[in-house]
Amino acid sequence: MYILDKNIKKPLYIQLYDAMKYEILKTLPLGSKLPSIRKIATEYAISKNTVELAYKQLYTEGYIESRPKSGYFVAEVLLEHDAPTKTLCETKPYTPLPIRYDFVPARLTHESFPLKLWKRLFIKAMEGDLDFGAYGDRQGEIGLRKEIAKYLIKSRGVNCDASQIIICGGFADSMNLLATILKTKYTHIAIEHPGFPIVRSLFHDYGFITVPINIDPNGLVIDELESSSAKLVYITPSHQFPTGVSMPVSNRIRLLNWSKRVEGIIIEDDYDSELRYQNRPIPSLQGLDNDDRVVYVGTFSKSLSPALRVSYLILPHRYFEAYRGLFHSRHQRCSVSLSTQKTLEHFMAGGHWERHLRKIRTLNRKKHDMMKESLQKAFGSMIEITSEGGGLAILIRPTINIDLAILRQNALTQGVKIYLASDYYGKDWEAIRMGFGGLEEKEIRKGIILLKSIWMETVTHP
Amino acid sequence: MYILDKNIKKPLYIQLYDAMKYEILKTLPLGSKLPSIRKIATEYAISKNTVELAYKQLYTEGYIESRPKSGYFVAEVLLEHDAPTKTLCETKPYTPLPIRYDFVPARLTHESFPLKLWKRLFIKAMEGDLDFGAYGDRQGEIGLRKEIAKYLIKSRGVNCDASQIIICGGFADSMNLLATILKTKYTHIAIEHPGFPIVRSLFHDYGFITVPINIDPNGLVIDELESSSAKLVYITPSHQFPTGVSMPVSNRIRLLNWSKRVEGIIIEDDYDSELRYQNRPIPSLQGLDNDDRVVYVGTFSKSLSPALRVSYLILPHRYFEAYRGLFHSRHQRCSVSLSTQKTLEHFMAGGHWERHLRKIRTLNRKKHDMMKESLQKAFGSMIEITSEGGGLAILIRPTINIDLAILRQNALTQGVKIYLASDYYGKDWEAIRMGFGGLEEKEIRKGIILLKSIWMETVTHP
Repeated sequence: MYILDKNIKKPLYIQLYDAMKYEILKTLPLGSKLPSIRKIATEYAISKNTVELAYKQLYTEGYIESRPKSGYFVAEVLLEHDAPTKTLCETKPYTPLPIRYDFVPARLTHESFPLKLWKRLFIKAMEGDLDFGAYGDRQGEIGLRKEIAKYLIKSRGVNCDASQIIICGGFADSMNLLATILKTKYTHIAIEHPGFPIVRSLFHDYGFITVPINIDPNGLVIDELESSSAKLVYITPSHQFPTGVSMPVSNRIRLLNWSKRVEGIIIEDDYDSELRYQNRPIPSLQGLDNDDRVVYVGTFSKSLSPALRVSYLILPHRYFEAYRGLFHSRHQRCSVSLSTQKTLEHFMAGGHWERHLRKIRTLNRKKHDMMKESLQKAFGSMIEITSEGGGLAILIRPTINIDLAILRQNALTQGVKIYLASDYYGKDWEAIRMGFGGLEEKEIRKGIILLKSIWMETVTHP
Repeated sequence: MYILDKNIKKPLYIQLYDAMKYEILKTLPLGSKLPSIRKIATEYAISKNTVELAYKQLYTEGYIESRPKSGYFVAEVLLEHDAPTKTLCETKPYTPLPIRYDFVPARLTHESFPLKLWKRLFIKAMEGDLDFGAYGDRQGEIGLRKEIAKYLIKSRGVNCDASQIIICGGFADSMNLLATILKTKYTHIAIEHPGFPIVRSLFHDYGFITVPINIDPNGLVIDELESSSAKLVYITPSHQFPTGVSMPVSNRIRLLNWSKRVEGIIIEDDYDSELRYQNRPIPSLQGLDNDDRVVYVGTFSKSLSPALRVSYLILPHRYFEAYRGLFHSRHQRCSVSLSTQKTLEHFMAGGHWERHLRKIRTLNRKKHDMMKESLQKAFGSMIEITSEGGGLAILIRPTINIDLAILRQNALTQGVKIYLASDYYGKDWEAIRMGFGGLEEKEIRKGIILLKSIWMETVTHP
C-alpha cells in the first residue's frame, strides 16, 4: 500500500515512483510481477498517465523490466546490493583554534581591499552586457590581458604583448598549466633550496625529477645549476623566497646565457615584486631575455587580494603551439570567472591599480618598519633579522638556544600563531617568518610583546 | 650627458637611473669608474640624495659595484650579454572565422543567464563585509557548500554533507585535484570509450595508464572492466558522453560491488544531469554507494554559466586525509573567487537556482524538440539520431556516404560550424554533435536548412 498525497508539492508520479522503488529495494522478490498500470490507477484513483510516468522512470533507471505482452517485473539483477546505509566514517569539518595575533606571512588586512570601488566597477562591468552563456576566451579576456601587459612593461620592464599572457586562477593553477606544457620537453626541474615548497611538490606530481640548488647572497648558485642535469629552472630572482635575497644583473645574464646554451627554460616567479620598501622593484629577468626562454609568473594575491584568485603567466612564443594543443587535448580554459576578469580590467584601466599599489606599499612599508623596530626592541640580540625590506613578512632566526616548535606550541595556547621555515626546509632552516600584512600597526606591537613573554617562558622553562 | 627633466612626473632619481643603466649597457667599458655622487649632484644641480638613490638601485640590481674608498664601478661580468632585442617570433592572436550558426555542443544563450539578478545578489554578497585580505576557506566557502549539499541530496539522491564538498574552478580543475589525490594509490584508470576525451589526456599527464572500456546500450561494459587491471574508473552513468545512454540500476550495483571487491574508486561525472527532457534525472550512483567508494563530480557550467567557472567534487571520507595533505604539500586552495562563491550561495539559498533550473529545462527542452524535428524534416533517412533527450546537443550519424570532414569545411565557409565526434574517437565514431543550447529556436531552424543545402552540395560534389 503506497501513501500518495495530492496536497503536497511533490508530483504524484514521483511519490509513486519513490514508494515503488523503496518496495523494490526492500521487499519485492527478484523478477516478481508488478501490478498493471490500469490496476494501480484504479486502486489509487489516479490517472493512468501518472502511473505510466512512474513506471517509465523506474524502467529508465533499471529497477523494473518490461516483458512483451506480460507486463512489468522487478529486474533480475537488483538485490545483490544492500540498501545504502550511513557512510562508514565521518569527515570532521576543519575547526581552527581562536587566534588573537596571527603572524601569517601571506595576507593583507580586511580594510586594504577597495570593497566599495570593486562593487562599483563590478556593476559597471555587468552593464557591459557580458555573455555568461558561453565559455570566455580560453586564454583570459583580451581586455584584461592588455591591461596586465601595459602594467608589466611599464613597471617590471617585461617584454611582452597581450597575446602572450594567460590568465590563471592562482599560483597552483598557473603551475599546473606550466608543468603540463613543459613535461613534453623536460624531465628535470632545478628549484631553489630553500625555496617555495609547493613547486617541488607540484612538479613532482607531474613526474618531474626536482634538483635542489642552493641559495647564496646572490640568489641561486649558478655554478651548481650549470653542473646539474637540469635544463629547466624555477627561481624567484627579485625577492627570493624565503631568504629575501635578490639576484644581481650579472648573475641574471649568466643564467640567461646558460638557458640559451642548454636550450633550457627559466620560470621567473615575480610573486611580490610590487612590495619593495627600500629600493624600487628590480626589473624582471624576463625583460633581459632575448632568446624567448623565460616564463614570467605573476599574481594579484599579494598586493590586491588572495581571495580573488587571479594570477597570470607570460609564456615564451615557442610554447604557444603546445599551449593551444592543450585546449584540444584537455579543454584547457581560463579558470577565472568573466565577472572577476572584467572588474579587474576596469580596475586597472581606470588607474585604480596603480593608486592601490601606492597605497598598499605605503601601508605595508609602515607595518614592515614597525615590525622590524618592535622585533629589535623586544628581542635585541636574541634574534637575527635575515630578510627584510619587501613582501609581507620579515624572516628572523634565533641566535640563542630555543626550540621553535615548542615556542610555536606555547604561543598557540595563548592565541599567537607563528610560522616556521623549518616545517619545509628541516632543521638547517630554523627561522620564523613573521608576517605583518594581516595585522594593524597596534596589533603588531602588542603581538610581539606577547610573543616576547612566551619566548622568555619557553627559554627559561624548556 | 644625461637628460633630466624636473617637470615630468617620473622621479629624478629614476630618470638618472634609467640614463645610467642605458649608458652602462651600451657604451661604458667593464669595470670603468663612475663619477662620484657629489660630482653628479653638482653637475646636474640635483640633491646628493637623488644621486644616491639612483646608485643604490643600480647597485641592488648588480649593474655597478662599490669598492671601499674608491667609489663606484661598472660591474665586471655585465656585458657578455646583448641588450634585449625584439623577441624572435611573434605569437599571433587567435582570430576565429565569422560564424552565423554555431552548433557548439556546450553553451547556453546569452539571455539564459540571470544577469540582473546576479548583479543584485553580488551587491548583497559584497554588503556582507567579505574579507578579501585573506585566503578564503581552502575547500570553498562553507555557506556555498551547504547549499550544494542540500541541492544534491534533494535532487540527485546523493549521500553527503558539506564537509565532503570541495569547490573547484571548472571540470579540469576538479580533475587535476582528483588525479593528484588518486595517483598515490592507483596507477591505472579505466575510461569510457567513446568518452570525454579530456579525461584520458589529463590523467595521462599525471602518469596514469588509461584503460579504455567499451560502451554498450547499458553504458560501460562491466565485464570488460572486471577483466581489466584497473581499480579506478571514470564514468558518466546518467547521460553517457557522447552516446547519451544511461546505466541501469542493476549495472550500477554491479559496478559498486566491483569497487568494493577490488578496493577501487568510481569517479561519477554527473555533468549535465539537470538537463533531462523526457524523464526525471536519474538519481546518482553515489547515492547507492554504501562503502565510501564514489567520487561525485558536478558543475554549474552546463545549466547556469560556463563563464562563471564553478564546479565541485564530493570526495569519499577515506580521501580527506590525502586531500588535507595537499594543502600542506602544495597549498591546494579553492580557485573560485570569494565574490563568485558568495553570490552563488545567495542564488541557491534564495530559491533562484531551482527556479532557474525549471526555466532552463523548459527552454532547452523546446530547443531540443525543435532541433530533433528540424533534423528529421531536413535529413529524413540520411541520418540516424543516436542520442537525444538530454543535455545541450543531439548526436546524429549519417546513414549515407558523406565525408564529414569535407562537410565541416564546406559549412565553415558559409558560416556554419559543426562539431565531429570523429575528432576524438577516430573513424569508428563518425557522428556530428549538434548543439542547440547557444541558439535561438529560429536560428536552429534556419541553421539546419542551410546545413542541409551544404550537405546536399557535399554529397553531390564530393
